[in-house]
Amino acid sequence: MMNGKQYVESLARMKILVYIDGEPVREFWDHPAMRPAVNSLAATYDLASDPALDPELHKYIVAVSPLTGGKINRFLNIVQSQEDLLARMRLQRAMMRHTGGCFGGRCVAGAVINALWSVTYELEGGGGKSEYHQRFRNYMKMCQEQDLAVSGNITDAKGDRSKPPSAQSDPDLFIRIVEKRKDGIVVNGAKLQQSGAPIAHERLVVPTTALGPDDEPYAVAFAVPGDAEGVIHVNDSACVNAKFTAMEPEDIGNAAFGMHQSAHILFDNVFIPWERVFLCGQWKASRDLVHRFSDFQRFASSACRCGYIDLCIGAGLAMADFNGAVSKSHVQDKLVDMSVDAETLQGMVAGSAALAAPTASGVMLPESLTINAAKLYMNDAILRTGQRLADLGGGILVTRPSSRDLKIPKVGELLLKYHKGRDGADTMDRIKMARLCESLSGLASPTVVLSVIAAGPPATQRLNFRFMTDFKRDRKAAERLAGIQAANK
Amino acid sequence: MMNGKQYVESLARMKILVYIDGEPVREFWDHPAMRPAVNSLAATYDLASDPALDPELHKYIVAVSPLTGGKINRFLNIVQSQEDLLARMRLQRAMMRHTGGCFGGRCVAGAVINALWSVTYELEGGGGKSEYHQRFRNYMKMCQEQDLAVSGNITDAKGDRSKPPSAQSDPDLFIRIVEKRKDGIVVNGAKLQQSGAPIAHERLVVPTTALGPDDEPYAVAFAVPGDAEGVIHVNDSACVNAKFTAMEPEDIGNAAFGMHQSAHILFDNVFIPWERVFLCGQWKASRDLVHRFSDFQRFASSACRCGYIDLCIGAGLAMADFNGAVSKSHVQDKLVDMSVDAETLQGMVAGSAALAAPTASGVMLPESLTINAAKLYMNDAILRTGQRLADLGGGILVTRPSSRDLKIPKVGELLLKYHKGRDGADTMDRIKMARLCESLSGLASPTVVLSVIAAGPPATQRLNFRFMTDFKRDRKAAERLAGIQAANK
Amino acid sequence: MMNGKQYVESLARMKILVYIDGEPVREFWDHPAMRPAVNSLAATYDLASDPALDPELHKYIVAVSPLTGGKINRFLNIVQSQEDLLARMRLQRAMMRHTGGCFGGRCVAGAVINALWSVTYELEGGGGKSEYHQRFRNYMKMCQEQDLAVSGNITDAKGDRSKPPSAQSDPDLFIRIVEKRKDGIVVNGAKLQQSGAPIAHERLVVPTTALGPDDEPYAVAFAVPGDAEGVIHVNDSACVNAKFTAMEPEDIGNAAFGMHQSAHILFDNVFIPWERVFLCGQWKASRDLVHRFSDFQRFASSACRCGYIDLCIGAGLAMADFNGAVSKSHVQDKLVDMSVDAETLQGMVAGSAALAAPTASGVMLPESLTINAAKLYMNDAILRTGQRLADLGGGILVTRPSSRDLKIPKVGELLLKYHKGRDGADTMDRIKMARLCESLSGLASPTVVLSVIAAGPPATQRLNFRFMTDFKRDRKAAERLAGIQAANK
Amino acid sequence: MMNGKQYVESLARMKILVYIDGEPVREFWDHPAMRPAVNSLAATYDLASDPALDPELHKYIVAVSPLTGGKINRFLNIVQSQEDLLARMRLQRAMMRHTGGCFGGRCVAGAVINALWSVTYELEGGGGKSEYHQRFRNYMKMCQEQDLAVSGNITDAKGDRSKPPSAQSDPDLFIRIVEKRKDGIVVNGAKLQQSGAPIAHERLVVPTTALGPDDEPYAVAFAVPGDAEGVIHVNDSACVNAKFTAMEPEDIGNAAFGMHQSAHILFDNVFIPWERVFLCGQWKASRDLVHRFSDFQRFASSACRCGYIDLCIGAGLAMADFNGAVSKSHVQDKLVDMSVDAETLQGMVAGSAALAAPTASGVMLPESLTINAAKLYMNDAILRTGQRLADLGGGILVTRPSSRDLKIPKVGELLLKYHKGRDGADTMDRIKMARLCESLSGLASPTVVLSVIAAGPPATQRLNFRFMTDFKRDRKAAERLAGIQAANK
Repeated sequence: MMNGKQYVESLARMKILVYIDGEPVREFWDHPAMRPAVNSLAATYDLASDPALDPELHKYIVAVSPLTGGKINRFLNIVQSQEDLLARMRLQRAMMRHTGGCFGGRCVAGAVINALWSVTYELEGGGGKSEYHQRFRNYMKMCQEQDLAVSGNITDAKGDRSKPPSAQSDPDLFIRIVEKRKDGIVVNGAKLQQSGAPIAHERLVVPTTALGPDDEPYAVAFAVPGDAEGVIHVNDSACVNAKFTAMEPEDIGNAAFGMHQSAHILFDNVFIPWERVFLCGQWKASRDLVHRFSDFQRFASSACRCGYIDLCIGAGLAMADFNGAVSKSHVQDKLVDMSVDAETLQGMVAGSAALAAPTASGVMLPESLTINAAKLYMNDAILRTGQRLADLGGGILVTRPSSRDLKIPKVGELLLKYHKGRDGADTMDRIKMARLCESLSGLASPTVVLSVIAAGPPATQRLNFRFMTDFKRDRKAAERLAGIQAANK
Repeated sequence: MMNGKQYVESLARMKILVYIDGEPVREFWDHPAMRPAVNSLAATYDLASDPALDPELHKYIVAVSPLTGGKINRFLNIVQSQEDLLARMRLQRAMMRHTGGCFGGRCVAGAVINALWSVTYELEGGGGKSEYHQRFRNYMKMCQEQDLAVSGNITDAKGDRSKPPSAQSDPDLFIRIVEKRKDGIVVNGAKLQQSGAPIAHERLVVPTTALGPDDEPYAVAFAVPGDAEGVIHVNDSACVNAKFTAMEPEDIGNAAFGMHQSAHILFDNVFIPWERVFLCGQWKASRDLVHRFSDFQRFASSACRCGYIDLCIGAGLAMADFNGAVSKSHVQDKLVDMSVDAETLQGMVAGSAALAAPTASGVMLPESLTINAAKLYMNDAILRTGQRLADLGGGILVTRPSSRDLKIPKVGELLLKYHKGRDGADTMDRIKMARLCESLSGLASPTVVLSVIAAGPPATQRLNFRFMTDFKRDRKAAERLAGIQAANK
Repeated sequence: MMNGKQYVESLARMKILVYIDGEPVREFWDHPAMRPAVNSLAATYDLASDPALDPELHKYIVAVSPLTGGKINRFLNIVQSQEDLLARMRLQRAMMRHTGGCFGGRCVAGAVINALWSVTYELEGGGGKSEYHQRFRNYMKMCQEQDLAVSGNITDAKGDRSKPPSAQSDPDLFIRIVEKRKDGIVVNGAKLQQSGAPIAHERLVVPTTALGPDDEPYAVAFAVPGDAEGVIHVNDSACVNAKFTAMEPEDIGNAAFGMHQSAHILFDNVFIPWERVFLCGQWKASRDLVHRFSDFQRFASSACRCGYIDLCIGAGLAMADFNGAVSKSHVQDKLVDMSVDAETLQGMVAGSAALAAPTASGVMLPESLTINAAKLYMNDAILRTGQRLADLGGGILVTRPSSRDLKIPKVGELLLKYHKGRDGADTMDRIKMARLCESLSGLASPTVVLSVIAAGPPATQRLNFRFMTDFKRDRKAAERLAGIQAANK
Repeated sequence: MMNGKQYVESLARMKILVYIDGEPVREFWDHPAMRPAVNSLAATYDLASDPALDPELHKYIVAVSPLTGGKINRFLNIVQSQEDLLARMRLQRAMMRHTGGCFGGRCVAGAVINALWSVTYELEGGGGKSEYHQRFRNYMKMCQEQDLAVSGNITDAKGDRSKPPSAQSDPDLFIRIVEKRKDGIVVNGAKLQQSGAPIAHERLVVPTTALGPDDEPYAVAFAVPGDAEGVIHVNDSACVNAKFTAMEPEDIGNAAFGMHQSAHILFDNVFIPWERVFLCGQWKASRDLVHRFSDFQRFASSACRCGYIDLCIGAGLAMADFNGAVSKSHVQDKLVDMSVDAETLQGMVAGSAALAAPTASGVMLPESLTINAAKLYMNDAILRTGQRLADLGGGILVTRPSSRDLKIPKVGELLLKYHKGRDGADTMDRIKMARLCESLSGLASPTVVLSVIAAGPPATQRLNFRFMTDFKRDRKAAERLAGIQAANK
C-alpha cells in the first residue's frame, strides 16, 4: 500500500489535463486551490500505510479484500457484511473529524464500486457470469493491488430536468456511446461537479438516472485513467475558493485540509477499450444501479456529517470557554442539541446497517428507508449545527482581524488588546479558533449546499418513501381494528 | 405455554385486590374498564401459543430460553444478542400494529428483567455468583416455565422532586424496607401509574432513581404475587376512561384493545420472603439498574410507536380516500411525512441494536446515546402524527353522530345522508374509521402524555447526553485543526 | 343589554328542537352536555351588562354600534377600524383566559356578519343600495337592539371533497334553494359541526365554498330563528363528551365552562321569508364572502389561542411548583417557549390589524397573508403547548385518583398520602390542577382537532400564499440584481 | 438633501483614517472592499433626493421632521407614531429588495437615535429639560439639516462575557471616560464590528450593556466626526471579503451592492467637547437605553429580512424555471414556505407597531415581546431560506464555471454547452442567477452569522420573555378555573 508521498508521486507521473481558473496547470497537485484536497486524499494513504499515525483510524481504514486476500484501503472494498458497513460508518466519521472536510471523494467511489459490482453480478441470468462482471472484477483487483484512487463519476449535465436523456435537444447532455468499435467504444458528454476528480488515478463512470428503453445509448458504465486522451478537467470551485486562495495562509481556518475541491470532467469523444466497459446498453440495469449507488452514498455522507458535528461541538465549546460563557445554560443546551443531532444521525446510519440485506453478489445494501430518512435528517441537522456554532462563536467568526491587520504598527497591538476573552485564554488562540469556526460554519465552504444536494435532493428521498412504504399493510391493519369488511374494497 | 383463555383463568384463580372507580371488583378482568387491557395481554398468549393466528408475529413473540432450553414468550426473555434486540424491536412494532394500544405493560417487565439480571450478576465481585443473582435466576426460570405475566414496577410517589428519598418529609414516598426478619423483609410504599399492573400474575419491584448512601433502606428489589397480603391495586385511569365506559360499545374506535389501563399499587407493609428479594441495601447498584432499565424501556417504547404511526398512516389514508381527497399533493405529503417519522424512529432503534454492547452477564444493552435520541425524536413525532391524522380526517373525528343519534327516527337517516363521502365509499365505514382515528389521535387515549413521560421525561435523556458525550475528544480534534498547542490548557 | 340569566330565559321561551345522545331534550340548556357551553355564552352577556364583574373585559366586550348609536355586544359589531380589530383581538384572548374554552361560537357569528355585510354592500353596483344589503342592515339592527346570540353557520356536508356542489350525486350535500315562492324561499340541506348552534337565538347561514356558474341554487344566505319549522339540531359531541358527562363533577378540570359543544343542524325544507334572504343566486359573490369570512375567523381563533396558551403557562407553572421543580432550567425553558408562542401568535394577529384595509362598506379586513400565516403558526403552537403542559405536569394528568377512589376507606387516605408534592403544597390543590391540565392539554377536549380544522385546513392557507404572493415582483428584483435583461422573458 | 454623488464627495472631504487589509487607504470609498457598501449608502441618498428613481421607495424614505419642519431622510427621523413605524418597516423591506444587502448601517443609527432621544428626554426629572437632551436635540437638528450619515456604535470589546465592565482585568474593554476636562471629556476603548462605520460622516456612541453603580465611567454617550483625532477604523471583513476582492467582477453575484462591510473603531484617547456628550455617568439610564435600542434594531432587522426572503423567492423561482422544474410540487412548496416565512416575520413587525406605546418624549417603541419573538423567528427563517434556495438552485450555486474558465479556447464552449438548462433559457442567464443565489444563500456573505448575532443573541430575547411575561396573571387565571383558593399561596 502506498503512503501519501507515493500517492502524490504516482499522480505526478500521469499527464492529467487540468484547468484551474482559466489556465492549464501541469503541477496541479501543488496548486493552492488543490493542495488541501490532495492533502486529504494523501491522508487516506498515510493512515492506511502507517498504523502509528492513528491506530484507531488505521483499524477502520484497512480491510482484507476477498478479491486479493490481502490488505487494502477500505474505500476500495466490496462490502460483504454488516460489520463492513459499521466499519465504513466509523471510518467516515473519524476521517471527517480528522480532516474537517471532504477526503477526495473516496466515499463516492466506494458507493459506485459496490453498486456496479452488485448490478453487473446480476446481469445475463445472474451468478456473476456475465462478461461485464468479469471485466469489473479484473478491474477492481487491479485497483486494489495497485492501491489506486478512484473517482466515481455520476452527475451529468442534465439540461431540462423534466426530460429524459433521449428527449434533450442536445444529445450530449448525458454521457452517451457515440460509436461502437471492434476494440471498444467512444463516449461523449460531461460529468459535472465531481468531488476530487482531478486528483484520483482512475475515473469510474456510471449513469446518473434510471433510464428508459429510448435511452439505450446512455446506458454505459466504464473506467478510464485520468490522463486518457479527450478527458479534460476544469476545476469548478474557482469562485468558491477565490477567497481561500486570496487569503494569507495563516488567516485560513483549516488550511491543511479545509477547502472543498471538485471539477467538471469533459469527455470529448473518449475511446474506451472493451475490458474497461462495464455496461453497454443495459438500460434496465440502470434503475438498480442508481438506487444502490444513492443509498451507499447517503450512508457515507450521513456518517461523515456526524464527524463534522463533532468538530463543531469542539469548536463551539472552545469559543464559549474563551469568552467566559461556558457555564451558561443556553450554551450547554446548544452543545447538547448538537450532540443529539450527531447521535440521531449515526443511530440511523447504524440502523440501516443492522437492517441491511445482501444482494445476490453478497454486497450488503444499507436498508433503504432508514438511510433515506438519515439523509433527510442530515439536511436540517447540518444547518442547525452551523447556526449553533455561529451563535456560540459570535460575530468574531466573520470580523476577526486579518494577519495583515495585526501587523500594523500600534494598531495591531490595539486590535489584539480588544480581542481578549476571559483571563487565561490566549487571544491568538481565540482568533485561531474563530478562523476554524468560520470555516466549519459553512461560510467558507460549500458544505451547506453539498449537504442538501449530494446523493440526490430531498425530494428524491421523499419519493422513495412514497413508493416503498407498505401503505396497504397499514391500511389493512387499520381496517381490521375499525371492524371494516375487506369485501368493501 | 398458555393461550389467552388459560391466562384469564389463571388470573381468576388468584385473589387480587383491585378497586375500580371507588369499588373493590372481584372479577376485575371482566370489568369494561379492564377488558381491553386483558384482551391485549391475552393476545400476547394467543399469538405465542398458536402460530396459525399470525405466523409473522408468532415468529417474533416466541424465543428459546437459554435458561429453560425451551420455547418461551419473548417478553420474558433474557436478551443475549443483537438478533434478540432486533426481534424485540419487530415484536413491539407488529404488536402495536395488532392491538393499536398498550399490550399490558409486558415491555416494561422485559426492561426490568434484563436490567435486574445484569445488575445482580455483577454484585459481590461479579460472575453471577451472588445469592441475589441466584435467587433471581430461579425466579425467572419459574416465570418462564409457568409462562407468567410479570408487571415491572418502577415509579414511586416521589413527593418533592428536588429531594432524594431519604430527605422527603414522609419516608414512605419511595418504597422502603421497614423491617428485616429472619424469613424475609417487610416493605412499605407505593408504585404509581403502573401499566397493566392488576392483570399480571407477578409484581417485580425495583427502585425508580439512582440512590445515595443515605438511601440504603430504599435500595430494594423484590417480586411478589399479585394477591399477596397488603398489595392493593387502584385503577388509576378512572377519569380518562370515564368516557370509554360511558360510550355505547359501537361508538368506541378500538373497542377490543383500545383503552389504556394502569393502576396505583399500594404496598401496605407487605412481607417478602428472602428467596424473592433481589436487592437489599445495595444502593450503589441502583444507578446501573435505573440506567439499564430506562434504556431498555426507551428501546421498547420507541419501537412500539413505529407501529402506532403505521396504524395512523393506514387510518389517515382511508379517511382521505373516503373523502375523495387521496390524490391531493398535501395528503400525499402528510402520508410521506408520517412514514419518514416511523422509519427515522425505527432506524435509531435498530441502530442502538447494531451498536449494542454486552454486559458482564451477556445481556445486550442498546447503545445509550442512540436510544436516548430515539426517545427524544419520538416525543415530537407522536404529536405530529396525531396532528396529521386529525388534519387528514377532519372535524368528523370528534363530531360524528353517536350510534344512538343514528337510531332517531328520520333524523338518523338524515344524519347518515349528510355523512356521505365520495360515491362508492360506505358511509358507515367512514364513521367507523373516524371512530378509530379519534382513538388513535390521542383524544380518547392518554397516548400523548405517556409518549412524553414514559421511560423518563425528555430532560433526563438530555442530561444523559451532557454526561456521556465525549466533549474532550471533540475539543481536542478542533484544537488540532486550529493549530492550538495542547500546552495552553 | 341582557344579562346571562335573561339570555337563558329568552332561550327557554323558544321551542328549539335539540337531540342529545339520541333523545329530544326540551330543557337542553340545562343538560350536562350543554351547560358548560351555555355558561360560557351567558358569561358574554354578564360581562357586557355588568362592568363590575371584570372591568377590563367589560371594556373590550362592549362597543358602540354605528347602526343603533347605542352600546352593543362587540361580537355583534360591524368592524370599522383598526382599533375595533385590536379590541376584538384583546377580547378573544381575555375571554379564552376567562373560560378556558369556546364561548358559544360568538366569534364565528362575528366573522359571518362582517363578511356578509361587506359582500352584500358591494352587490348590484355597490354603495350598499342593493335590496339584500338593506335587508341585512335591518336584520343586524334588530339583532343588536334585542341583544340576540347569533350562530354563524358555514360547513356543509360536502360529500366528495373533489367535487363542487352541483356535481355531487346527492344534490342536498350543500344547502340549496329547492323552491322560490312569492313570500320567500325553501331551503334544504345541513350544516355540520356548528359550534354553539343550539344555544343561540338566531342561525345565520352562508355558503361554505366559492361557487361556480353551475352552483347557482347553492348561492344562498339567510337567517332563521332557532325554532323555525324544519330546523333540527343534533348535538354532535356526544362521543367526545361522553367522558365529561360520565365523570363526577368534581373530577372535571374545568366543570363550569370546559366542554366544547357543537351540533349538526338539519334544514328539512325550511321556509325563509324574503326579508331574511341575503343572497339568492349570486354565485359570484360567494368567493369574496368565503375569503372574508375565513380571514375574520382566522383572526378570532388565532387571538383566542393566545389566551389558551396563557392558561397553560399558568397551569404548567403551578404543577412544576407543586412538584418542587419550578427552578429547573428546562422548566423555565418550557414556560418561556410557551410565552414566545403566545406572543408570536398575537404579534401576527395585531400585524394583520395594522395592515388591514377597508372594504367599500368600511368593514376593515385583517391583512390576508399575515392572518393566514398566523393560523398556520397556531396549528403547531397549540400542539407544542399541549405537549409542554403534559411534560410539565407529568403522568398525574391522566392517572390522578378519582373522587370516588379518594373516598375508599383507608385506601383513599393512602392515595392522598402518595400524591403529595413538595412540603407546603396542598395535595388536593395538586390534584385539582392536574384535572385542569388534563382538560387543557387536549385529552378531554377537542381543542387539538379544532385548532387544525377551524377556519379551513392548513392546505387552504398555503394555497392562499400561492395565489397571493407577488412572485413577479420578487423575480424582477432578483433579475435586476443579477443583471439579466427583461427582454429574455 | 444630498444625492449619492454629493454624499461621496462630502465623505472625500473628510480625513477619515481607515485601514484595509493592513494598509491605510486614503480613498477608501473607492476601494473594492468598500465600494459595494458605499454604493448601498449612496442609494439611500439617491432614492431620497430623486423621486423618479423609484417612486414607491421615495415615498417611504422621505419623512417630514418635527425638528426642522422640512423633509429629511427617514433614517434620521424621530419615530413619533405607528404610521412612522410602519413606514420604516416598509422602507427596510423595500431597501433590502433593492440592494440585496446591508445599506450602510443606517438602520442601526436610527435605533440609537430614537433610544437616546427618549432616554435623555427622561433625565433629570424628565420633560426633556436636561442639558443632555438639549445637546442631543441640537445635534440631531444639525444632522438632519446637513443630511449626514450617522453610524450608531454599540458593541464593545467585552472581554470576559461573565463580567461587567468594571470587573474586567483591562479597564478599556468597554469604552470609558478617562478624563473630564473643562471643555469636554476624553474617552478610550473600542467599538468592534460596526456595520458601515468608516463610510458615515458621524459616529454616535452609546454603551452596549446595562450598567451597575460600579460602572459609572462607562456610562457615556457621545458623537464624534469620523475624522476626529484618535479615531481609527480597521475594516474587519478582510477575511470574509477576501473572496470577493479576488474574484473577477463578473463572477460576483451582486457586485454593485452585495458585500457586507463593517469595521472595528478604535478610540485612542479621543477628546469630545461637552456639546457632543449626551450621557456622562448616568449608569441608571443605560438599562432603558440598551433595551430601547435593541428593540428598535430588532424591528429594523426583522423587517429587512422580509426583503431578503423576497429576493430569494425570486432567485429560486428563476433557477427552477431555467432547470425546467418550476411546476414540480416540491418546488411550489418551497416557494410557498418561503413566502409564509416572509409574511410571518412582517406580520410580527407590523404587530409590534400596532401594539407600540409612546415614551414620555413621544418616541413610539415597538411592543417588546412581539419584536423579540420576531427576531427569534427570523434566526431560523433566514437559515431555512438559504437552505431552500440552495435546494432550488442545486450544486451550480458553488460549481459554476468562472468567467476565466469560459474564455478557455474550446473548453469554454464545452462548459457553456453543458450548463444548458431547459430550451429557451439562456445559459449565461442561468449562470448569472446562480451567482446571485450563491451570494444570497449566505455562502458569500456573512448574512447567516449576522442574522443570529445582530441586536443581541437569541438568549437575550428569551431572557426578556422570562422577565416580561406576566406569569402571575396566568397562574391566577388557572387557579381560578381549577377552584383553588388564593389563600393557599
